[in-house]
Amino acid sequence: MSEKRQLRVCLTPALFPLYADRKSIVVVVDVLRATSAMCTAFHHGMDKIIPVSTVEEALDYRDGEDHILAAERNGKQVRGFDFGNSPLQYQEHDVKGKTLVMTTTNGTKAINIAKRDHQVVIGSFLNIDALTDWLAKQNKDVVVLCAGWKNDFCFEDALFAGALTEKLLKTKLFESDSDSANGSRMIYIRAKDDMFRFLGVSQHRQRLAHLNIEEDVKFCLQKNITTVIPVLKNDELVLAE
Amino acid sequence: MSEKRQLRVCLTPALFPLYADRKSIVVVVDVLRATSAMCTAFHHGMDKIIPVSTVEEALDYRDGEDHILAAERNGKQVRGFDFGNSPLQYQEHDVKGKTLVMTTTNGTKAINIAKRDHQVVIGSFLNIDALTDWLAKQNKDVVVLCAGWKNDFCFEDALFAGALTEKLLKTKLFESDSDSANGSRMIYIRAKDDMFRFLGVSQHRQRLAHLNIEEDVKFCLQKNITTVIPVLKNDELVLAE
Repeated sequence: MSEKRQLRVCLTPALFPLYADRKSIVVVVDVLRATSAMCTAFHHGMDKIIPVSTVEEALDYRDGEDHILAAERNGKQVRGFDFGNSPLQYQEHDVKGKTLVMTTTNGTKAINIAKRDHQVVIGSFLNIDALTDWLAKQNKDVVVLCAGWKNDFCFEDALFAGALTEKLLKTKLFESDSDSANGSRMIYIRAKDDMFRFLGVSQHRQRLAHLNIEEDVKFCLQKNITTVIPVLKNDELVLAE
Repeated sequence: MSEKRQLRVCLTPALFPLYADRKSIVVVVDVLRATSAMCTAFHHGMDKIIPVSTVEEALDYRDGEDHILAAERNGKQVRGFDFGNSPLQYQEHDVKGKTLVMTTTNGTKAINIAKRDHQVVIGSFLNIDALTDWLAKQNKDVVVLCAGWKNDFCFEDALFAGALTEKLLKTKLFESDSDSANGSRMIYIRAKDDMFRFLGVSQHRQRLAHLNIEEDVKFCLQKNITTVIPVLKNDELVLAE
């Protein structure tokens, strides 16, 4: 028997029942843009983030002191909310010590699917090396859960899953016989030298082209601008101790 | 508006509801080994194939004249059946003019998911160029449905999906904004010069390693050893006219 820990990649939330094992750590990723925004918010001093599934749930927090409300649907900020899911907003405004209540099309849903039976941590290119180091220390199997787009495969999350697979396998602490981990890794190896260009043909980029999120995309593809490790505790994201 | 036809790739049957549009032609692929076996059977003169979902349904045909019964579960031929899903069996035995009743872990299930509302055609590396030419003539959008492994992504079917995407885009008749088509194509481009080696790390190969199917795998990765185009008509696979 191998002593190494298992690494698997779940390409969309629709497939998560095949990966739920009640013991793996689940890395939730939604590169464009929810988990990138979460990492950015913590990097700029946000105290905690409450991910909720619906706009209605988010509105329940409307009167909270020091609360910031963020909602995105189909790429757009929902009317009446302070923020959408652009990570740039969190560096432009003072968020220090505040609580973010956030709902997004795919990202927060993925968190809520995973949280019932699994430890959840937030991944993005922005914190990928710190995340790799942190996962290496946890002594648990890992599932990378791609938030995807409306339950389907999406390119940018597979790209991140491939990058994280590459890094975790290099630690020699993990192994993977997961076809989706190996497939994602092949996509990453092919695209890594020009991720922005490869993402140019993706559905997400085309879908959001009219929203002028090119700056957001470039921001989200930066590696290691932060070392924050957001983990879920009692339904709230906080920094790992 | 573009005049080109749309090409999409559905990475597992679990995601097919996202792709069902009641108008696309669905290419069902289960490289290891159901659709490769089907193409081989037709190439050697099989008259028709009845794909059924369960072993019990297959056994209903037990007394039929000129019927061959094939059943595979978890990579193994089911006890009491004439054939499993190895394509080699169809070249070693005389199948000319006969009817094959077949049930497999993934392949026949994928056919049955697609057939209700869509025209179904069978794809494999063995008939890939003939299939490309045939699809080019149909004037319809195309969905490649990967049979996968028990509803999850599998490497070899994505590899085929990538190869077919590459070929269909080259005809200039198709376009694709499907992330799964583009992702599969990137996997194919990376693996195409040594598919056998890249498949070596796949779950399927490891899963079936003890079954000595290396010869089957090599057989299934051959391109264009036949020009048969199996299509579904009245719940039976027959050669396209």
